[in-house]
Amino acid sequence: MNKALRNWAGPLRARVDTWMLGRFTDAWPPRFQEACEYPLKTGGKRMRALLACAAAESVGGEVDETVLGAAGSVELVHGYSLVHDDLPAMDDDDERRGRPTLHRAYDEATGILVGDAMLTVAFRALARLPADAAVRITLVEELSDAAGHPGMIGGQAADVGLGGPVVELDALVRLHRGKTGALIRGAVRMGAVAAGASAEQLAALTTYGEAVGLAFQMADDVLDADEDAGDDGPPSYVKLLGIAETSRRAAALRDEALLAVEGLPDAAILVALARYTIDRDH
Amino acid sequence: MNKALRNWAGPLRARVDTWMLGRFTDAWPPRFQEACEYPLKTGGKRMRALLACAAAESVGGEVDETVLGAAGSVELVHGYSLVHDDLPAMDDDDERRGRPTLHRAYDEATGILVGDAMLTVAFRALARLPADAAVRITLVEELSDAAGHPGMIGGQAADVGLGGPVVELDALVRLHRGKTGALIRGAVRMGAVAAGASAEQLAALTTYGEAVGLAFQMADDVLDADEDAGDDGPPSYVKLLGIAETSRRAAALRDEALLAVEGLPDAAILVALARYTIDRDH
Repeated sequence: MNKALRNWAGPLRARVDTWMLGRFTDAWPPRFQEACEYPLKTGGKRMRALLACAAAESVGGEVDETVLGAAGSVELVHGYSLVHDDLPAMDDDDERRGRPTLHRAYDEATGILVGDAMLTVAFRALARLPADAAVRITLVEELSDAAGHPGMIGGQAADVGLGGPVVELDALVRLHRGKTGALIRGAVRMGAVAAGASAEQLAALTTYGEAVGLAFQMADDVLDADEDAGDDGPPSYVKLLGIAETSRRAAALRDEALLAVEGLPDAAILVALARYTIDRDH
Repeated sequence: MNKALRNWAGPLRARVDTWMLGRFTDAWPPRFQEACEYPLKTGGKRMRALLACAAAESVGGEVDETVLGAAGSVELVHGYSLVHDDLPAMDDDDERRGRPTLHRAYDEATGILVGDAMLTVAFRALARLPADAAVRITLVEELSDAAGHPGMIGGQAADVGLGGPVVELDALVRLHRGKTGALIRGAVRMGAVAAGASAEQLAALTTYGEAVGLAFQMADDVLDADEDAGDDGPPSYVKLLGIAETSRRAAALRDEALLAVEGLPDAAILVALARYTIDRDH
């Protein structure tokens, strides 16, 4: 991240983290409340929340309580997906960001329940935002589309093999459009909706969100690339296309994203975020 | 169930089941869609959905698409809670209603993801009901309160021991107000909201829902009662109060519920459901 982007992102990240922690003040029993807070205290880039805030600002909005709530609820859904993804039956990860995963720090039952609570509270929070009912229900619709079986969960299901082996590019694109793309697209759209974007602005931001969502995964694959891995490991763009072609496509998607938002009132942060997301080296 | 209640419930149950299956027509991959439908095809009393429909009718409403959606979304949340509850890390159940549990028929990862999808689609469905935005967002608020950490998930967390051993009656009541009571209360309130109940009617129905929710669990405990079990097994009203006192309290709650709805335009079905729920012998 360059300095301007860092200066913009730092305070917002802190606000999003505080907002997320604030959703669990009425959780019980106390040990469960503590467990719900655990995955929120690991830091993280909060990229989805930042994209939501940037989308709001790009159409002239401010990061008020409604935009912050839209951003935070997307991040809660992302967080729940990581908690469930880390479970032994899924990726079976022992560590995340240098700390034991939730089900290692507590137990598996707690991991399942905390994930369920994070998903549920995301919708609870949207329902209580200080905005018109029409805006709130649109945010619920957006988040449930992005997080549900047409989006993220469908992608997760494909990722655990319920769609059979992923050997074709089309299938890999569909998997990632679901698993990571849908929530990134949703984050951008929700920020825009919360800030009162016009239909035309929303369409431009959707193009941006879809392109960034897909390119994000391609950039990840390039960073993780080991072209010699052969048929081992999960399917990836690098395995199907090679590093050079994957990088070329990620750059083309980045340019598509930048072009889409060119006409918005204030797209500077969106541009910086797209560049950072796709051109990052970690 | 007496004949009148059976005649009322049968067609509604069929409509709720069809409605729930209809929420997954756009699920993918196909094997995941099939897995999402699996827990919806086991039958079941659909008691929460029936309570929502009865609450709507009690204030003069019909079971239109909005009431049906409110009822079905509560039942989807109940269904997801069973799918996650059956997982090895929770109750580790191999069978439900004579069929392998979902994670036995498929695998654990699928069990986790199908539960997640059922929870998410409940909110997705509410957001798309053919009702005013204000009604839809109120339904989202009600369902997320009932299903979330202040309600069902908190109760589940207490049930898996995150609140320590449950040895006092107060703690047991709180556990069950969360684990089963909150969603029953929520079902009644959501049916009422969907049918446009007045604030006074909603208050009466809330009293009804809370009393029935608690009595439901007491009746369960009496049916499962084995006073000789001593300190083994989960905490129960029978263990803390004995069969006779538990039955007496359940009957008192039933009467409180019946009294609460006495003044509603058409409480006949609510009365029959409360009697059936609390006086049932299975």
